[in-house]
Amino acid sequence: MKIAERIKKLRKMMAEKGIDFYIIPSSDYHQSEYVGEYFKCREWISGFTGSAGTVVVTNDEAGLWTDGRYFIQAAKQIKDTGITLYKMGEPGVPTFYEFIAEKIEKDQCVGFDGKVMGMAQIEELKKKIKKKMKINGEFDLIGEIWSDRPPMACTKAFVLDQKYCGESVKSKLARIREIMEDENCDVHVLSSLDDIAWIFNLRGNDVKNNPVNLAYAVITVDKAILYIDEKKLDENVEKHLFNNWIEVRDYFELYDDMELISNSEVVMMELGKVNYSICSRIKSSVKVVDRQNPSTLMKACKNKVELENLRKSHLKDAVAVIKFMYWLKKNVKSGKITEISATEYLEGLRKAQALYLEPSFDTICAYGSNAAMMHYKATEESDTVLKPEGLLLVDSGGQYYDGTTDITRTFVLGPCSDEIKKHFTLTLKGMIKLSKAKFLYGCTGTNLDILARQSLWEIGIDYKCGTGHGVGFLLNVHEGPHGMRVAYNPQKFEEGMTVTNEPGVYIEGSHGIRLENELIVQKDIKTEFGQFMKFETMTYVPLDLDGVIPELLSEDEKQFLNDYHKMVFKKISPFLESEEKEWLKKYTREI
Amino acid sequence: MKIAERIKKLRKMMAEKGIDFYIIPSSDYHQSEYVGEYFKCREWISGFTGSAGTVVVTNDEAGLWTDGRYFIQAAKQIKDTGITLYKMGEPGVPTFYEFIAEKIEKDQCVGFDGKVMGMAQIEELKKKIKKKMKINGEFDLIGEIWSDRPPMACTKAFVLDQKYCGESVKSKLARIREIMEDENCDVHVLSSLDDIAWIFNLRGNDVKNNPVNLAYAVITVDKAILYIDEKKLDENVEKHLFNNWIEVRDYFELYDDMELISNSEVVMMELGKVNYSICSRIKSSVKVVDRQNPSTLMKACKNKVELENLRKSHLKDAVAVIKFMYWLKKNVKSGKITEISATEYLEGLRKAQALYLEPSFDTICAYGSNAAMMHYKATEESDTVLKPEGLLLVDSGGQYYDGTTDITRTFVLGPCSDEIKKHFTLTLKGMIKLSKAKFLYGCTGTNLDILARQSLWEIGIDYKCGTGHGVGFLLNVHEGPHGMRVAYNPQKFEEGMTVTNEPGVYIEGSHGIRLENELIVQKDIKTEFGQFMKFETMTYVPLDLDGVIPELLSEDEKQFLNDYHKMVFKKISPFLESEEKEWLKKYTREI
Repeated sequence: MKIAERIKKLRKMMAEKGIDFYIIPSSDYHQSEYVGEYFKCREWISGFTGSAGTVVVTNDEAGLWTDGRYFIQAAKQIKDTGITLYKMGEPGVPTFYEFIAEKIEKDQCVGFDGKVMGMAQIEELKKKIKKKMKINGEFDLIGEIWSDRPPMACTKAFVLDQKYCGESVKSKLARIREIMEDENCDVHVLSSLDDIAWIFNLRGNDVKNNPVNLAYAVITVDKAILYIDEKKLDENVEKHLFNNWIEVRDYFELYDDMELISNSEVVMMELGKVNYSICSRIKSSVKVVDRQNPSTLMKACKNKVELENLRKSHLKDAVAVIKFMYWLKKNVKSGKITEISATEYLEGLRKAQALYLEPSFDTICAYGSNAAMMHYKATEESDTVLKPEGLLLVDSGGQYYDGTTDITRTFVLGPCSDEIKKHFTLTLKGMIKLSKAKFLYGCTGTNLDILARQSLWEIGIDYKCGTGHGVGFLLNVHEGPHGMRVAYNPQKFEEGMTVTNEPGVYIEGSHGIRLENELIVQKDIKTEFGQFMKFETMTYVPLDLDGVIPELLSEDEKQFLNDYHKMVFKKISPFLESEEKEWLKKYTREI
Repeated sequence: MKIAERIKKLRKMMAEKGIDFYIIPSSDYHQSEYVGEYFKCREWISGFTGSAGTVVVTNDEAGLWTDGRYFIQAAKQIKDTGITLYKMGEPGVPTFYEFIAEKIEKDQCVGFDGKVMGMAQIEELKKKIKKKMKINGEFDLIGEIWSDRPPMACTKAFVLDQKYCGESVKSKLARIREIMEDENCDVHVLSSLDDIAWIFNLRGNDVKNNPVNLAYAVITVDKAILYIDEKKLDENVEKHLFNNWIEVRDYFELYDDMELISNSEVVMMELGKVNYSICSRIKSSVKVVDRQNPSTLMKACKNKVELENLRKSHLKDAVAVIKFMYWLKKNVKSGKITEISATEYLEGLRKAQALYLEPSFDTICAYGSNAAMMHYKATEESDTVLKPEGLLLVDSGGQYYDGTTDITRTFVLGPCSDEIKKHFTLTLKGMIKLSKAKFLYGCTGTNLDILARQSLWEIGIDYKCGTGHGVGFLLNVHEGPHGMRVAYNPQKFEEGMTVTNEPGVYIEGSHGIRLENELIVQKDIKTEFGQFMKFETMTYVPLDLDGVIPELLSEDEKQFLNDYHKMVFKKISPFLESEEKEWLKKYTREI
């Protein structure tokens, strides 16, 4: 079935149900960023495979809203489908809320599957639309026309041992209940999969690359209920839940339980993370405190055990990536390596590392102009043979029992232009400036972002995405609540947070560069002026000196790079063959 | 009457009126930052003379809340008064809202003069206090006990010619009415004095250093009403108002007029800028759109005529400050110059400049450790003789018909320690980094602030204030809506905005350094990645090279400083005597 036919079928269903605007977001029932195959309705209806985007279909129009990471890819993928691309954040481009608000007529109906629409999104929509309108969150219309839809994932859950995660479920529940008490709340409803995985020290495989289980949770003063398909639980997990006084109920039972919350109870939940259907089932007379899930900040601040494990997993990950770099530089001349085969080779090297589970996201292995697409994924059709010239961008990461990694290196495969080297060096310069920053406690990513970006801004180049994001612990590779970006994020950097540092240059049709390290937020000195903070870099892979113009770096920046490379050699060389070691010496040399 | 006696009298009045908490803010009836003598109730009741602060008095406690600029000064001034200093923004220190919320018991009464309390403040207070309470905004209790209170200012208004301000009143009103139409508003109520002065092209002298008149305004689709004491209007002003179809009503008539707004009308007003009494007089059934006054952003973006005039006024101001610097360096050895006499000498030099009116704020002329108080003002008692050693900080500015200036220079009067020179150079480094920034359109001061601050953060020093503020055009020296600070300010930098760049080092008991230039926001290149922006520096006075350690500056930073000094010499030398010129050559030399 072609995209146009699917949209036609959808419009027929919309007409039958009296729906004038149908919204199809990217989400699953849990407002996840990455979702299982069952939930890829937005991809199915539009052909756009990116991780973020929303489709709105009306009687005679269809639009796709996506962000800067995906402008090039989305335009390619929806070409000739009749869908219009709305580039989010570009001047003059309406949001999909504004689009609907602009087009809707009195008493028309906006429809969606209430289980995949965030409650906060619907609140936003209601605020934007001043006309009287109907809302219908009852129907999963895509489900009704998607005949070969894959089944919902059902993988086994497993317990993450305390030697990896460093804190017991009981301790986590106690800390959450303390906040519930502070906020005078009786019932805490959770739907976000990583929060639930973190609280219960459980992991699973229901979402590719994101080691979580589809589940909901409810925490009260004396109860903790996990809503999950029982088929996912083996004896070991059941024992773990029993020992921690956690009650198990069926996945879908949550919705009925929402109706049972009494008027005298106060509910704590994060409206940005629960779906419309959950909220709709709670009596409107129940008081709801809309608040960030307490576990979100707790989870973001890694404890000492987690930090020690993270350093270990990053060390193993670096061994894999450095072996890959050696192999790549040595063999690119053969003309036999492609984006996909390189990806597979790298995956093989990671698999050889202890405690490795799976990639933490789809590897981006993009040669030449393909790298201008920030989130390119090679397909059979696009797969490109690497030549001994230009750049190869590889953004990849692993899920290990002892942590999640995320690293990007751009490798110089052979001769490249002075312009490309300039872009490479200024990207590196930005990365170094942010890495070596010292800042007063209280700063957010909004304050710091410019350090990574400014050297590129000086020559009129910007990258259309944030500079960095938090990373989970054997959890989602994108983790809040903090972030490193120009747009406002109110979350202060706290000790123990992890955050990526990944500036880049993306020149459509020409080349793409991204350099990404992971940082840990640490305390620095405390003076009469306050507590100062700094970053520890925990990614240990050389930045390709073949792309660096040393004269563009300041003495301080060169010093930082030299010290970094010295550390890399010291940490990683013990794990390499003698030839690799020799080679690494050269690629970690002083400049 | 001593402070303690005043507070005792106030408590007696509070008891009579049944008030348990009485709030005395710094403001006048217009939420002004600087106020006329009549309005200095907070100063009268506490003895604290700073421009920002709030006093709360209860039956047995009295607290003063002020910000980082004033911690040292306030502590000195309220010593032995029984008033507790609450350092705003410091960890663990409650806001005065939190203080009241913490102490108040059910059915107790919070009182204040509704004309000096901002509506937004009362909304904030209500949000913080969860108990049932009474609010009484009827009584100006300070007025009742302050027997020798100065009269309310009544100075003549004057028209600011279009050759200075560049836009007619009709054009300004048309632009405001366009926004009122967009927002479906019928009545726009204005209380902020600088907005009113800007819209009506009027200036006055009701507030020292701030050339405004006490007035309110109401703008409707077909009317513009100015509420002002008629004694302030001469024939010329009356003609100007008449020609622009502006109706004049008495200053206090506004309050009665508020009651006449009908239910069918929608009011536009900025709750953060109107007082509680104004809001209370509007029927609660009238719809109010709380929105930034449209004139605030318009006023902040200087037009071409204003910018040309600003450059002229800054040139004259620089001539005065450079002559001062020459005189100071030459005569400091005499032992006859004091902080106050230096201030007077500088004022004399400004008075000699064309179109000069008055200082734009109280000059801060602070020697040695006095400069550690950010907003120090020399008094007869504190006045210090300058010696040929250490630093003198002079923060001053002028009101000219062709613009408002604000400049700080810290002068090296003789030998000073390496540490002081290091602080001086790192302050300069921060100022240069911000001045030469190129940034993508969309950035706010929150994104850019770190550029000025980071070099100091690297050595564990912070300054407890923003890096910069907007400056009016023959108006308030502090002007929003934008700002340069770590805390979030959502206002993007727009072409034509002015903003100060004033990092500093303040070491209690030792020394204070501040270097301040004024910048104009300009468009830079536009590329496929967006519109880039840059700053033009419009302050033309050397940074004292006697304080600079060149090795601490990068080559780029030295280049910037050398280019800047070259420009200063070129622009200013034609206005100097030959000896001064010779001297300036030396102080603008290449390093």
